[in-house]
Amino acid sequence: MARTRWLDPDEMRAWRSYITTSVDLMKALESDVSPYGITMGDYQLLAMISEAQDSRLRLCDLAEQLRLTRGGLTRRMDGVLSQGLVRRVQDDRDRRVAFAELTAKGWTLLKRVAPIHLASVRRLMIDHLSRAEIKAIGSAFGKIEANLRES
Amino acid sequence: MARTRWLDPDEMRAWRSYITTSVDLMKALESDVSPYGITMGDYQLLAMISEAQDSRLRLCDLAEQLRLTRGGLTRRMDGVLSQGLVRRVQDDRDRRVAFAELTAKGWTLLKRVAPIHLASVRRLMIDHLSRAEIKAIGSAFGKIEANLRES
Repeated sequence: MARTRWLDPDEMRAWRSYITTSVDLMKALESDVSPYGITMGDYQLLAMISEAQDSRLRLCDLAEQLRLTRGGLTRRMDGVLSQGLVRRVQDDRDRRVAFAELTAKGWTLLKRVAPIHLASVRRLMIDHLSRAEIKAIGSAFGKIEANLRES
Repeated sequence: MARTRWLDPDEMRAWRSYITTSVDLMKALESDVSPYGITMGDYQLLAMISEAQDSRLRLCDLAEQLRLTRGGLTRRMDGVLSQGLVRRVQDDRDRRVAFAELTAKGWTLLKRVAPIHLASVRRLMIDHLSRAEIKAIGSAFGKIEANLRES
């Protein structure tokens, strides 16, 4: 077995502060959107669909973006579908193709929650960081994500 | 209402890559420890107790470190207690004080999983980052955590 390379002090600090803080940060972000009856996951889903062309996204593209199986996507969409924030629509030209589309109710909610969510992202994270830290987080997590997608 | 300060491109990249990557990263880290019958949360609990003086930690200090209520701590410890990895012990001198202590089984498991968990932290995160990124993550999440603890 290869010799264990323990984390040096900088690495340990990065890992520990990232992992413990993330749990608390997620909890705080969740509690800011929960009064609106949605989870952070629901919010991200609504935002993702709203940013797509014509505010609709093919289900297979959505599954791909979220790296979910079709079954996983169905479960992930349960909340927004049952609340009538998103609807499934079939392509007129090709009935095999299905889209997720924001409903009017979904748009209204998204517009209402977006500034609140943004304010909480600023207050809980972004506004505490220097420009160098912001750039480093962008590049670091970009690399971590690229590796995860490859493996 | 205050004018909405939207995220600029650097801030958006930091936020988006952090939040989407973290979900995937947690999932990958979980799946590396799950063959050993524990969650990442269980692992952190075992590691935290093992690092305390005499490998035991007062329950109230543990709750404080994890920022949990007493009830929250009880639920959080369910898994490691029922698996016999940790036991509750009462202080001989002051019966009102209770400790969490690693059992022999807990030590054995921790020693077995530690190098595997470390390897997965390196492979999934640390080894992809430059020294500057590692330092920036340590300082950034340190500040985010400090703010969360104050609020």
